[in-house]
Amino acid sequence: MLGSNRYGKSDIRVVKLVRHPDRHDLKDLTVAVAFEGAFDVVHTAGDNSPVLPTDTMKNTVYALAKQHTLEHIEAFGLALGAHFLEENPHVSRVVVEIRERMWERVEVGTQPAPSTFLGSCSETRTASVDYSRERVSMRSGLDDLLLLKSSGSAFSGFLRDRYTTLADTEDRILATALTASWLYRESGGNFTRLWGEVRQALLDSFSAHDSRSVQHTMYAMGEAVLELCREVEEIRLTMPNKHHLPVDLSPFGLPNENDVFVPTEAPYGLIEATVTRNRNV
Amino acid sequence: MLGSNRYGKSDIRVVKLVRHPDRHDLKDLTVAVAFEGAFDVVHTAGDNSPVLPTDTMKNTVYALAKQHTLEHIEAFGLALGAHFLEENPHVSRVVVEIRERMWERVEVGTQPAPSTFLGSCSETRTASVDYSRERVSMRSGLDDLLLLKSSGSAFSGFLRDRYTTLADTEDRILATALTASWLYRESGGNFTRLWGEVRQALLDSFSAHDSRSVQHTMYAMGEAVLELCREVEEIRLTMPNKHHLPVDLSPFGLPNENDVFVPTEAPYGLIEATVTRNRNV
Amino acid sequence: MLGSNRYGKSDIRVVKLVRHPDRHDLKDLTVAVAFEGAFDVVHTAGDNSPVLPTDTMKNTVYALAKQHTLEHIEAFGLALGAHFLEENPHVSRVVVEIRERMWERVEVGTQPAPSTFLGSCSETRTASVDYSRERVSMRSGLDDLLLLKSSGSAFSGFLRDRYTTLADTEDRILATALTASWLYRESGGNFTRLWGEVRQALLDSFSAHDSRSVQHTMYAMGEAVLELCREVEEIRLTMPNKHHLPVDLSPFGLPNENDVFVPTEAPYGLIEATVTRNRNV
Amino acid sequence: MLGSNRYGKSDIRVVKLVRHPDRHDLKDLTVAVAFEGAFDVVHTAGDNSPVLPTDTMKNTVYALAKQHTLEHIEAFGLALGAHFLEENPHVSRVVVEIRERMWERVEVGTQPAPSTFLGSCSETRTASVDYSRERVSMRSGLDDLLLLKSSGSAFSGFLRDRYTTLADTEDRILATALTASWLYRESGGNFTRLWGEVRQALLDSFSAHDSRSVQHTMYAMGEAVLELCREVEEIRLTMPNKHHLPVDLSPFGLPNENDVFVPTEAPYGLIEATVTRNRNV
Repeated sequence: MLGSNRYGKSDIRVVKLVRHPDRHDLKDLTVAVAFEGAFDVVHTAGDNSPVLPTDTMKNTVYALAKQHTLEHIEAFGLALGAHFLEENPHVSRVVVEIRERMWERVEVGTQPAPSTFLGSCSETRTASVDYSRERVSMRSGLDDLLLLKSSGSAFSGFLRDRYTTLADTEDRILATALTASWLYRESGGNFTRLWGEVRQALLDSFSAHDSRSVQHTMYAMGEAVLELCREVEEIRLTMPNKHHLPVDLSPFGLPNENDVFVPTEAPYGLIEATVTRNRNV
Repeated sequence: MLGSNRYGKSDIRVVKLVRHPDRHDLKDLTVAVAFEGAFDVVHTAGDNSPVLPTDTMKNTVYALAKQHTLEHIEAFGLALGAHFLEENPHVSRVVVEIRERMWERVEVGTQPAPSTFLGSCSETRTASVDYSRERVSMRSGLDDLLLLKSSGSAFSGFLRDRYTTLADTEDRILATALTASWLYRESGGNFTRLWGEVRQALLDSFSAHDSRSVQHTMYAMGEAVLELCREVEEIRLTMPNKHHLPVDLSPFGLPNENDVFVPTEAPYGLIEATVTRNRNV
Repeated sequence: MLGSNRYGKSDIRVVKLVRHPDRHDLKDLTVAVAFEGAFDVVHTAGDNSPVLPTDTMKNTVYALAKQHTLEHIEAFGLALGAHFLEENPHVSRVVVEIRERMWERVEVGTQPAPSTFLGSCSETRTASVDYSRERVSMRSGLDDLLLLKSSGSAFSGFLRDRYTTLADTEDRILATALTASWLYRESGGNFTRLWGEVRQALLDSFSAHDSRSVQHTMYAMGEAVLELCREVEEIRLTMPNKHHLPVDLSPFGLPNENDVFVPTEAPYGLIEATVTRNRNV
Repeated sequence: MLGSNRYGKSDIRVVKLVRHPDRHDLKDLTVAVAFEGAFDVVHTAGDNSPVLPTDTMKNTVYALAKQHTLEHIEAFGLALGAHFLEENPHVSRVVVEIRERMWERVEVGTQPAPSTFLGSCSETRTASVDYSRERVSMRSGLDDLLLLKSSGSAFSGFLRDRYTTLADTEDRILATALTASWLYRESGGNFTRLWGEVRQALLDSFSAHDSRSVQHTMYAMGEAVLELCREVEEIRLTMPNKHHLPVDLSPFGLPNENDVFVPTEAPYGLIEATVTRNRNV
């Protein structure tokens, strides 16, 4: 009567300072670990003998963070997954999710400061490792990249029914908080360099695209990544449509020349798609 | 090269007042709608002709809320799903998710007030309808029910490795923010009454259980629901372990008689399981 | 060149279990402590000798929580303030702010459970103690009490200028998240009983009032508290106006009989006032 | 019996696009307006005739945003304050608070894109205008600038009592989310340029300072601003101490070479001070 189940530790925060002679590097990670496996007696009989405590998962993250370079979060995720599977024969699957907050160096004069950082970005770099006895699947990604384009975006010619009141527009603000994750064809490589290339491809295509809809632009962004980054097999994109509504200024005797908008939080459109090299998704 | 995709509107807020001669009833819903179907040209060619705007989805929620009793959010979800599938032959699947904030009547003297409400609960009632041309699947549930038991909870006899520092405990605080959702055997009935019965079964079993672990209690709660509510086929439970750490008072010359704790937000344990009438999950 | 300054510790979380033979009581507090005093050399010369670490403030909250009944958060705030002033002659003023999350007992059958609690309310009880060498000022209060009335609320006859588009309404939803704090005439007494009386007076008057505006109802609520609770000298009320906008259903051929609304988060009205026994505020 | 009172509109969101031939500029503001004045009858008699609706305040923000360059939020705040005081003789004081979210241009190749923006920063620029019949007081500022320094920060030689357990440290991470606001000597000028200069002075001094405590660094930052920016009369700084606790790796047979830390959210230190050109604060 017990169906699928998993357990783990979430929101494990760890900051590591890599001390070079002339500067510090800073790594700021949030890690989640989850186990699946032979845990039925834990649920049905209260027998804890197979349970590695989630507190130990946390300790393991700390201990391995100490011993790992953390240069690529993908590699750290793989190391954690391999460790847990190796040490725990009764575990069949380990999922490790890592989020990296990106700090930049403060500029003092024209020089980057050796050990002072500015971290105000909401955008995070992500990696997700799904490690089972049979296979390893790894995704790299980014979360919460706020993007807005104020030209080259239309939405018209859509389906209308009796509840449709939206007007066609040939010129609207398109704003989103992009979440993307992608699969590499091979699970090795310079993930940090690749991550930067994918991110730039996303920015460039979002910027250049003549958008007929969020879907249209999202697909173009996925295509651009697959075209430019041969290492990427598939990319998943989520783009909430953060609506900017033109204000009706006519009661005040003023024109709205498509220049004054109210951004709204709720409701919002939610658009998701996967773009892949072949249709076997 | 386009893989799975969906689009829709999230966070559609609607409040409805049902005006009885002697009192008002209040319904406070947050609705999300998502479509799947024949939308390839939208992505690949910028052709919007199949796109029912998400703004229209929102309008439809308003219009149908006006015409529906909203007595059971499950029934409202079914009505929305049926409407969208019927009106849009090119849509193959509609997912409707509804959250209901529960307001209670203010008591004035010993009488419930006819039209004044108190709404401070974070707990929400949920329904999720997954409506395709082939079948309808519906889940009822609740989110964010904060529960704490201060006796009858232990965690000991667990697996230890070189990174384990946690001590056995026979008496700890067990606290969680329960999320549960369940499938009914048939998709009709007095959902509001059933919801109350499932919720009470969860509370009773959480309270009565002699807990060896979160998993152990979670399973007992699932079993209790299946035993008491014949209409439920399967229940999914998510129980974050909101740790309460005993404070070390010894540096201050004080004993900690298991009575002073620090609740921590991060990291937290995350325990999930499905309990079902048969193993075909 | 150093002006006013203060330092302290915020968000100190502590949970205490009071173990009775037949049941547990649960206290869940969040405490903030701030010091003012002779700290100039800390800022100007980097001399830390006058600085009691904020970590020690935290420890002190734990240690005193162990030794105090916590029956009334007001009394605990006074104890903390007195302790810090007594032990630190160079400190001139201590401000202690306490928030209590209120857990209720789970009902099992018709009986309250002895050690299982339900804590889903966002509403918190608050106390603020401002303790200086010269005087002690104490406020009790509550935060984030969500209230809504669906009859007896109008807003009309207001000032109009060229930017006014709002229509008069004689029947609207009035919803708020009430924050209130009040001064007692004397700083002793059964604060928990008094707190319940003030809260009930706020609920009763909000419910009974024939409202012409938020201001009008807020003042009536303040008056009701001062009338019913002789111990209260002054009350401060903050009532955000959580707008519920009627949906225009006419494009769909439906009437809106003042029954379908969209609650909005932003922007919101913000109304604040103090009601006092005399004008020397 | 009515004491101090105010009312207004908060969280008024407005985005304005300034359309140049070769590019767009983007202004993203959140505005709050509050009135004080002769409003007693509103509270005590339910007479709304003096009440300019908060909805009108919102409309006014939209209308004036259309007509204003928005080049400096300070100037827009002054314009709003002056408008409301002029139009409403019964209003004695208007407080306008503006937050600006800063979007940067996306770089495409080596060129900034003409109409694509990236807005992932949590940091906001702020202005607060307090406008009464007698005087205008204006503060500029910034909120939520995350800063971290990993060298040049110590905390030792502090006061110890029986509840102190903290050890001296000569080398710790100092991290904060800086909030600052400052008064200009005159209420005119190139506020955007000045804002950048103050911000850079804060970054430079934070980076360069040999810190004995948060207070010590905060004061040095205030001094640096006053020294470099002759236009600034006074600066108020708030620096939560976002603790980074070294992880005890000894149970795992590993040294912690001051390189592995857990950042914690609660509790946190809260340090505030004003630095001014003279002591008359």
